[in-house]
Amino acid sequence: MNDFEGTKRRRRRKRPADVKSKSSSTVHAPYIKRNIGVFDVLSDEGAAIVEDNAETILQEIGMEFRDDAEVLEIFRQAGADIKGERVRFERGMCRQVIQASAPREFTQHARNPLNTVRIGGNNTVFGPTFGPPFVHDLDGGRRYATLSDQQNFVKLAYLSPGLHHSGGVLSEPVDIPVNKRHYDIVYSHIRYSDKPFFGSMLGAERAQDSLAMAKLVFGDEFVEKNTVLYSVSNVNAPLVLDATMSGSLKTYARHNQAVAVSPFILSGAMSPCTVAGTLSQLFAEVLGGLCLVQLVRPGAPCLFGTFASAISMQSGAPTFGTPEGSKIIFGAAKLARRLGVPYHSMGALNASKLPDAQAAYEGALTMQSALLAGANYIIHAAGWLEGGLSMGYEKFVIDADRAAAMAVFAQGIDLDENQQAMDAIREVGPGGHYLGCDHTQRNFRDAFYRSQVADYNSFEQWSSDGALDQAQKANGIWKKMLREYEPPAIDPAIDEALLDFMKRRKDSMPDLHA
Amino acid sequence: MNDFEGTKRRRRRKRPADVKSKSSSTVHAPYIKRNIGVFDVLSDEGAAIVEDNAETILQEIGMEFRDDAEVLEIFRQAGADIKGERVRFERGMCRQVIQASAPREFTQHARNPLNTVRIGGNNTVFGPTFGPPFVHDLDGGRRYATLSDQQNFVKLAYLSPGLHHSGGVLSEPVDIPVNKRHYDIVYSHIRYSDKPFFGSMLGAERAQDSLAMAKLVFGDEFVEKNTVLYSVSNVNAPLVLDATMSGSLKTYARHNQAVAVSPFILSGAMSPCTVAGTLSQLFAEVLGGLCLVQLVRPGAPCLFGTFASAISMQSGAPTFGTPEGSKIIFGAAKLARRLGVPYHSMGALNASKLPDAQAAYEGALTMQSALLAGANYIIHAAGWLEGGLSMGYEKFVIDADRAAAMAVFAQGIDLDENQQAMDAIREVGPGGHYLGCDHTQRNFRDAFYRSQVADYNSFEQWSSDGALDQAQKANGIWKKMLREYEPPAIDPAIDEALLDFMKRRKDSMPDLHA
Repeated sequence: MNDFEGTKRRRRRKRPADVKSKSSSTVHAPYIKRNIGVFDVLSDEGAAIVEDNAETILQEIGMEFRDDAEVLEIFRQAGADIKGERVRFERGMCRQVIQASAPREFTQHARNPLNTVRIGGNNTVFGPTFGPPFVHDLDGGRRYATLSDQQNFVKLAYLSPGLHHSGGVLSEPVDIPVNKRHYDIVYSHIRYSDKPFFGSMLGAERAQDSLAMAKLVFGDEFVEKNTVLYSVSNVNAPLVLDATMSGSLKTYARHNQAVAVSPFILSGAMSPCTVAGTLSQLFAEVLGGLCLVQLVRPGAPCLFGTFASAISMQSGAPTFGTPEGSKIIFGAAKLARRLGVPYHSMGALNASKLPDAQAAYEGALTMQSALLAGANYIIHAAGWLEGGLSMGYEKFVIDADRAAAMAVFAQGIDLDENQQAMDAIREVGPGGHYLGCDHTQRNFRDAFYRSQVADYNSFEQWSSDGALDQAQKANGIWKKMLREYEPPAIDPAIDEALLDFMKRRKDSMPDLHA
Repeated sequence: MNDFEGTKRRRRRKRPADVKSKSSSTVHAPYIKRNIGVFDVLSDEGAAIVEDNAETILQEIGMEFRDDAEVLEIFRQAGADIKGERVRFERGMCRQVIQASAPREFTQHARNPLNTVRIGGNNTVFGPTFGPPFVHDLDGGRRYATLSDQQNFVKLAYLSPGLHHSGGVLSEPVDIPVNKRHYDIVYSHIRYSDKPFFGSMLGAERAQDSLAMAKLVFGDEFVEKNTVLYSVSNVNAPLVLDATMSGSLKTYARHNQAVAVSPFILSGAMSPCTVAGTLSQLFAEVLGGLCLVQLVRPGAPCLFGTFASAISMQSGAPTFGTPEGSKIIFGAAKLARRLGVPYHSMGALNASKLPDAQAAYEGALTMQSALLAGANYIIHAAGWLEGGLSMGYEKFVIDADRAAAMAVFAQGIDLDENQQAMDAIREVGPGGHYLGCDHTQRNFRDAFYRSQVADYNSFEQWSSDGALDQAQKANGIWKKMLREYEPPAIDPAIDEALLDFMKRRKDSMPDLHA
């Protein structure tokens, strides 16, 4: 951990080496408390138009909730119009249901209380990329992911101060049967990290399993009273929620665990090829999904989610880091604020196959948009490559470093007397320099964010160090991190109970491979 | 030009191939008219503190104007307190002088009127990197720049719809004697481009030469009545303006040409190692410089400039793309708005030696900060590498593509009926797809920004295309651009007059090499 300590922790702790011997309970910053405002791209008038269109969509067209009779019954009892699996809502109904009970902020507990996060309000939480079936590193190129990759990325996220959350499927362990992966995934977060994490989002049964494992760690009573799992329910745009998603949504909501309702949209294919049209559809989908959460359990923590990019209208390929995607992030943030629920948005998305300039430029646009839009949970903040098909080892540490830098940006401009530094300006005067002045001597240690993956050396020094590009430098960093990784302590009885639960459950079912 | 036409022009023109045969006078967009707001990181209260500190600096400490007796006399007559070369200003004096006459917006004319830019207000102009002594490309690595590189980068800027300005010293032609370079540099902008450009900023004599060459192109009378040159006057922070800079500043101001007063600051060495302290000093320096511009000629176009980053407090090396640098960009923008003059800020700065992820991540942070801060002229928007020591060919086309994407972002969210796309949402319905619907058929051509340097192909296609990273792809693009480049037409008599003027001037002086 020492080598990769970001500035934020370093500012508050003295030195990483001191952390182990002293209590760090008073100095740890587990998430970003923003001291900057939010940037609006969608005007109030524009938001009102989109909101009105979304109500029209819910009223006239409605949404389909497939293969889940219970959901239809829940909506019927709430007064919606049901025809087959199509559910139509009176204007304002979803909004009223949501605003009557959805919390504006909530706490997700970590097994290490120092890593517990507050989601909503002026807070931002960065979490790693979710879902790639492939991994990429400079040594081996691109290959299918295994459980060992999942464990590695959990460890890297644990060691990255720029990341506040352990996430979920950091890479899909394709070496494990599909119906048993979620046990190993949830276990990896508990065993190799002590940051907060995701429950499985794939259906009611796996959500129940995730809850059962969480209870072994946190205790039954604690889990029923507190939020310890985070999950995402993807609407299949346009306007469909299937039983896999509604199953996990209902399970988590019932147990007061967090659900982000996040339409999965590639604009041009799954929504209109315009920003305004995509926002209208997306908002309708979120309203329908969040309404269901609040009908299942009023007051359950939930988030307005977005995953939206566009396809290339020339080739049909998905694109990322585009100006249109950025506008959707900002527009949806405004709608979430007006609705009054926390906003779940997306991080360093890009279409590149490599951790190159394309990956970084596209990723930066998405990531900075989400931060300035005021997103409360930023998923995919580290590792994303190739439109989400691949999780990159080098990309992960580069992104995590940028996330830590953005946390410093989000602190805003401090204007206390020391920061104003008038004593220094008086001392130095015209034509002088500040390197040796008293103020600099007092402040230099904490003055600026110090990147662990950027090269600031002279060209000559950099050349004699091997002329590495950033990916090559990052290659050495993630290997060193994994080499020096030490797992957080866990009660052996809990570990044994988890392993026992997993074995019993796995033994109770055949292996499925698709 | 055809191959590199960005979306913005493509949207308005039909196809690049049509451009030559039809008049494009009604459809050309020579700069960004922003349809988004600005993001504030510095609060009103914070800005008031910084402004008050700047006045204290000007009153108590003052600025030094070195080796220029005329400047001291100008300030003396305006009522400043002069002791030696130290000039102190009563509180509010500089602000009053500036606000009494500095224009909030102005027009810089290009020799092709279609490329004339409006600077200030809601407009943003992107210009290329200024000043590197080295160039970098993937084939040859890093080497000293020559005049041929300057000409190449002028051509690339001319061919890049994301760049609105031709800039100045795109790379320092070290093969030309130092005292004669400015002739070739100014000539390169006139001959190989028809976008607006810089005059030499190095002293009164070279500014006069730049003006003389501009007059050969635009005519004496036009130049006296209109702004055709842009220049930067760097304050040597802390608080010094030397005769080279004051000489060009006075010359341009006297002739109503644009001057950006831009302190050159590496925080920690040339200003306090804090954002608030740096902003206070920077604002004092800008006030002093702009006051001089307005005293020389009330009403002369001028800009509040910043070039500020930080040194590494560990190694002393300059750093770029840091969160602190970003805060300074936003903070200075706020001060410029409150002062009421256009804001000149900086683009894709980074410390990387290569067009890699570091270059892109750092560059994106600076560039997006400048855009969202509302900067009116963004210098260094393309090509920057290695802290400004090197101009990259591949980096240039990658950056120019991102600049074009940011122009699309700055258009904001269009909410007309077609963009709302309710007809499409009604037509497609739950579970459908939008690829074939009427709305998509009508809109797909202009729907999304289309990058020329990003790869959106599948992994398999990308692999069989050679598995290029973005820099390798860009290598082919800039070569193709230069191969297919055709210079804009120029009146042969003007060209002859320019060449004759340069020859006479060059022959009149010995070669200097330092």
